[in-house]
Amino acid sequence: MPRPAPWRLDPAAYPHTQSVQTRFQDLDVLGHLNNVAFAALFETARTKFNREAELWGKRFSGRRAVVARMEISYLVEGTYPEDVEIATGVGEIGGRSWSILSCMFQGDRPIATCDVVIVMDKDADGNGLPDHFKARLAEFRVREG
Amino acid sequence: MPRPAPWRLDPAAYPHTQSVQTRFQDLDVLGHLNNVAFAALFETARTKFNREAELWGKRFSGRRAVVARMEISYLVEGTYPEDVEIATGVGEIGGRSWSILSCMFQGDRPIATCDVVIVMDKDADGNGLPDHFKARLAEFRVREG
Amino acid sequence: MPRPAPWRLDPAAYPHTQSVQTRFQDLDVLGHLNNVAFAALFETARTKFNREAELWGKRFSGRRAVVARMEISYLVEGTYPEDVEIATGVGEIGGRSWSILSCMFQGDRPIATCDVVIVMDKDADGNGLPDHFKARLAEFRVREG
Amino acid sequence: MPRPAPWRLDPAAYPHTQSVQTRFQDLDVLGHLNNVAFAALFETARTKFNREAELWGKRFSGRRAVVARMEISYLVEGTYPEDVEIATGVGEIGGRSWSILSCMFQGDRPIATCDVVIVMDKDADGNGLPDHFKARLAEFRVREG
Repeated sequence: MPRPAPWRLDPAAYPHTQSVQTRFQDLDVLGHLNNVAFAALFETARTKFNREAELWGKRFSGRRAVVARMEISYLVEGTYPEDVEIATGVGEIGGRSWSILSCMFQGDRPIATCDVVIVMDKDADGNGLPDHFKARLAEFRVREG
Repeated sequence: MPRPAPWRLDPAAYPHTQSVQTRFQDLDVLGHLNNVAFAALFETARTKFNREAELWGKRFSGRRAVVARMEISYLVEGTYPEDVEIATGVGEIGGRSWSILSCMFQGDRPIATCDVVIVMDKDADGNGLPDHFKARLAEFRVREG
Repeated sequence: MPRPAPWRLDPAAYPHTQSVQTRFQDLDVLGHLNNVAFAALFETARTKFNREAELWGKRFSGRRAVVARMEISYLVEGTYPEDVEIATGVGEIGGRSWSILSCMFQGDRPIATCDVVIVMDKDADGNGLPDHFKARLAEFRVREG
Repeated sequence: MPRPAPWRLDPAAYPHTQSVQTRFQDLDVLGHLNNVAFAALFETARTKFNREAELWGKRFSGRRAVVARMEISYLVEGTYPEDVEIATGVGEIGGRSWSILSCMFQGDRPIATCDVVIVMDKDADGNGLPDHFKARLAEFRVREG
């Protein structure tokens, strides 16, 4: 099983970082953050990133964009009540889709990565991502090592 | 249906306040914080209050304490991505149980209250709450209007 | 702290019963169903009851109805992966509000009760619950002991 | 973005299938099952599969096994209150890890797939998966098309 590339675990690779609080309800029977909670934590960071970067499909094109794939690599157990820091940026930009890459840290240690692929509906003429939306995405690219 | 007493909606009535983040996943089909999410938000505030006030049964007595009742009054819809502020304090203190009272605010507006009753196991001699635990609880009482 | 009345723990008191599955994610650090999960389980039973009984405000009046209060009494720890059975019926019917009463069983043992108060918006003329809606609610009343 | 292979969407490819209930709380602001709920639904199916197949590390070896990676492909929106059917089986079997592959159906339509990689701790002698555990896994392999 491939581990995330080293640069994926470096906060400096991502243009955006934020604290996200963990919840008591996130704990599993072993006293660690449960696997599903990681998905909710990454989602919250991603939606806040999208707002701050104004990276909604609707804002740019009026078109719908949906999550087509989510992949989480669990590296180390997470704990409560410490917050996590989630670093986020844009990965590949394709004709109709783009990826959002994140890394979650707790106490300076990377504990998980998340890759999400988002796909936008074509417009009435069959066009994919508008150029100005692609340009906006490009401003928030991760810096691959 | 009785509304919470006016003093329950006053942040000054509570000895402890903290910010709790909302999550995208807390939203319901109407775009408001869902009813279950309120329970998770109040629980997180309560567990952090218990840690800061050192109000665990175990710390004081080695005995188990469980939530026996939870009551939430929903006053106004909550929104994302704004944080909520949750004010918390101790209510009634009984022979084996005590209550924790909270009020959730968003943008300075009270949006919900929560009353929880916690019951501690008796000790081997059939005793209820230890005196020093009661004294600790009393330090964190709400100030009823 | 008052315990639920004995009739509240009798499945025969409720006109409607259904199985609701528990989830691995419902478990807390002690290996029991967590307090927040109870709220989600009761909510699922309540929404299915409302559909089967056709007890939506909208269906009858086009008006909005919201949960104003939720109270859960925790009686016994719940476990996974066993399903729970949730018995549900209508309690008090007021001018603008009504209550939905439930009891959750696991392995024939009552493990929690839930009381919810729902309030309907007044119509343009300031009227509360329509008579035909009240009649419908009355058909699904619990049978108090 | 690669779509799941056609055989991954065929219920006949998987040795194990079960119904999992959706919850009202699973709904997002658009009235569909939210992305995080899919993770909880797949997890519940996986833990039940592991129990029925007796595929716990502990049962076989006393060793700990953890989820190292989870990947979900979202194909079609899911709805409430309909149940989902989740088909599950074992994918690749490696020296220290194995994968569990699932497909979620609703109304006979595949709506999502999930791939999870589980890694088992080495034993005191540095050995990976015990042979009898590998044999057990092999009994529950998916049938690739």
